[in-house]
Amino acid sequence: MVIRPYGYAIWEAIQSYLDGKFKETGHQNAYFPQLIPYSFIAKEAQHVEGFAPELALVTKGGGKDLEEPLVVRPTSETIINHMFAQWVQSYRDLPLLLNQWCNVHRWEMRTRPFVRTLEFLWQEGHTAHATAEEAEEEAMRMIRVYEEFAVTQAAMPVIPGRKSRIESFAGANITYTIEAMMSDKKALQSGTSHNLGTNFAKAFETQFIDEQQQMRYVHQTSWGASTRLIGGVIMTHGDDKGLRLPPNIAPTQVVIVPITRKDADRASVMGAVDGLVAALKGAGIRTKVDANELKTPGWRYNYWELKGVPVRVEVGPRDVEQGTCVVARRDVPGKEGKQVGVPMAPEAFIPHVQGLLAEVQAALLAQATAFRDENIVDVTSYDELKATVAEGKWARGGWAGSDDQEKQIKEETQATLRCFPFDQPAGPHTCFMTGQPAAEVALFAKSY
Amino acid sequence: MVIRPYGYAIWEAIQSYLDGKFKETGHQNAYFPQLIPYSFIAKEAQHVEGFAPELALVTKGGGKDLEEPLVVRPTSETIINHMFAQWVQSYRDLPLLLNQWCNVHRWEMRTRPFVRTLEFLWQEGHTAHATAEEAEEEAMRMIRVYEEFAVTQAAMPVIPGRKSRIESFAGANITYTIEAMMSDKKALQSGTSHNLGTNFAKAFETQFIDEQQQMRYVHQTSWGASTRLIGGVIMTHGDDKGLRLPPNIAPTQVVIVPITRKDADRASVMGAVDGLVAALKGAGIRTKVDANELKTPGWRYNYWELKGVPVRVEVGPRDVEQGTCVVARRDVPGKEGKQVGVPMAPEAFIPHVQGLLAEVQAALLAQATAFRDENIVDVTSYDELKATVAEGKWARGGWAGSDDQEKQIKEETQATLRCFPFDQPAGPHTCFMTGQPAAEVALFAKSY
Repeated sequence: MVIRPYGYAIWEAIQSYLDGKFKETGHQNAYFPQLIPYSFIAKEAQHVEGFAPELALVTKGGGKDLEEPLVVRPTSETIINHMFAQWVQSYRDLPLLLNQWCNVHRWEMRTRPFVRTLEFLWQEGHTAHATAEEAEEEAMRMIRVYEEFAVTQAAMPVIPGRKSRIESFAGANITYTIEAMMSDKKALQSGTSHNLGTNFAKAFETQFIDEQQQMRYVHQTSWGASTRLIGGVIMTHGDDKGLRLPPNIAPTQVVIVPITRKDADRASVMGAVDGLVAALKGAGIRTKVDANELKTPGWRYNYWELKGVPVRVEVGPRDVEQGTCVVARRDVPGKEGKQVGVPMAPEAFIPHVQGLLAEVQAALLAQATAFRDENIVDVTSYDELKATVAEGKWARGGWAGSDDQEKQIKEETQATLRCFPFDQPAGPHTCFMTGQPAAEVALFAKSY
Repeated sequence: MVIRPYGYAIWEAIQSYLDGKFKETGHQNAYFPQLIPYSFIAKEAQHVEGFAPELALVTKGGGKDLEEPLVVRPTSETIINHMFAQWVQSYRDLPLLLNQWCNVHRWEMRTRPFVRTLEFLWQEGHTAHATAEEAEEEAMRMIRVYEEFAVTQAAMPVIPGRKSRIESFAGANITYTIEAMMSDKKALQSGTSHNLGTNFAKAFETQFIDEQQQMRYVHQTSWGASTRLIGGVIMTHGDDKGLRLPPNIAPTQVVIVPITRKDADRASVMGAVDGLVAALKGAGIRTKVDANELKTPGWRYNYWELKGVPVRVEVGPRDVEQGTCVVARRDVPGKEGKQVGVPMAPEAFIPHVQGLLAEVQAALLAQATAFRDENIVDVTSYDELKATVAEGKWARGGWAGSDDQEKQIKEETQATLRCFPFDQPAGPHTCFMTGQPAAEVALFAKSY
């Protein structure tokens, strides 16, 4: 998959936000080799079992066959533990809080743009701690960072929770996830944070001397979010006219379309447009002008609607005479989304646009939240789950089933256990599958 | 090679500056697949000849042997032309101005940290233009961007110029370079910009219809700078005590070392330090405090000298009483670099530190420039070149030799033709090798 500039600019917005949050929470960026000796991957039993079928292998380098194949990184726990084992000696070296922005490869049989690609871009955080408690706190802190990004920036009302054992990361004790509902009601796992316990530490002998002079294994976490988020944004908010991008991550927040039907109009219209652009850019609003006279204004409106630009400003000769313009929001279709007579004077125009961008951001989130809530059904029996899933909806119900029963549901309905949400309804709960008391409710849905 | 956080932070400073300049000059970021079908690499004859010996090949994916091996990208001209050929139809699609931040692999026999590594991080710009003139302008514009970065940010007084035919990029018509002199007097090629002409366009049929309805090949450029620059900074400025980092790209510009010999000192000293930190951070100065009382102040001074932090501030109890502190600059060793009695009041302290950072930046550039100029010798015969190179210096002289004579010099002296500098001394010139008139002087030096 090629990520063209418009998509990549969304990724840059995601990176900018997350990188800032990672640094605020004490993490530093680093870079580890992409090609990992196969023997490293093989050291942690669950890990190699989970990843072996998806690996790309380098077997030749510089014209020669390699003695040991190199794995093109699918994730970096192993190479990073190889280094951590050398770096960590004493409790004074902990915590180690690192992050890496990079590409990874997973040899997927069925691919789908942005959502499941052979290669994708992501960040992977890797931390080592002296205690189990600190690692658990870290894993929770980072899933909350992802949740905050999704909700406040991407306007994706994700549900944070814990994965079931069989859906957890290969090598993790616990996997936390944020699950998003796309507009076709499928679930998208949009970010994960793993408490790895001492699994990799034991495989790689990542040990430290504690304050009592005892050798101990470090407790670790890893957490990642990827270019899949771009797919999440597209599939959460898109409509029949194209993308609808949340203003906070939109590469272009405002597009201005000058309307110059006669040559005589051009000077005055473009003069007014220049003034608006200067004011918008001065206010830090990402702005584009589409003055392409080879295309009609209508063609240009459609084009920028397709691109999902949240706010469009139209300026024609009559507007200039009146000192006003027309402003249209992308999220509200047709005439209802159009405001005429908006003053162009910067002291009125800029606060108006800022307010509108905030409104669009909030409206997209509210709309997606309402859609999500409409499409989650509480179920009390397996039959109800089947009916719910057959309608394409998400099912929520008490769960105390076995791993085998979870697999049975997947085979029979294609729905998987998405998560045990952190936010649990009041109990007691009864397992819809077994009729036994259940400690928690779980969400089931079809996914990509 | 692993890039640890301190080194990676230098890379982030480099990225931040260059990415800003690329965008200012109209480029957008994108991302292309890393694994390239071998047949793509083979399409441009010179390109495959140059890169084939250095390739890493993926031959297995998802547990199966691949029908065609995939090349782990050594550079992306081929995959990008594969896409450009689909994207470019008309002159209206041009220019295409893209950049990609990524990792690349070249299977090197002799590696050296940062400078020659099997995998490295870089950016690669790729552009397509309607005319040869525009491509040439672009190639020149970007080598000047690299030059400006090197001189103003990295304090590396690079010499920009044109590579000889045999030292040019495999597939380029012309390669421009910035050449830096390291402190061991070896040359480091620190960034390159290539005018690719229509070579790749012809191999990939990247054509457009011009305004006269004629099919034409696009004219292309590519240009790159890498984590090698981190090595360049280290080897340009480092001394026997460790790194010396130019303030503009130093992850930490100011380190404050509180001196608290008695418990009673701690509150007042740390109070004063907190005030300095707040003022420095408020002024956008990257600041660290090293209050590790397990280490003596002297140990901590040495540690941050090793790390190359440009300015150190020492605050002890007597300083606090007097409202002053001691400030030491990393680039001037010993007592001469120390200033006592510097007022801690922010209105005096901040401008003082800002001035000092600017002085250190300028002094590192001036020192490296003087060193470079002392070690370039004008030669008028091959014997003089040999003697100059044997001393480890760079030789400059008129050059009208053949490719074979250039290779002969390399074999006999290990020096290579680094570049024909843009900045040429007044002529006429005589070739030191052949005695014939020479259009230009060239620089010869040993390199990494």
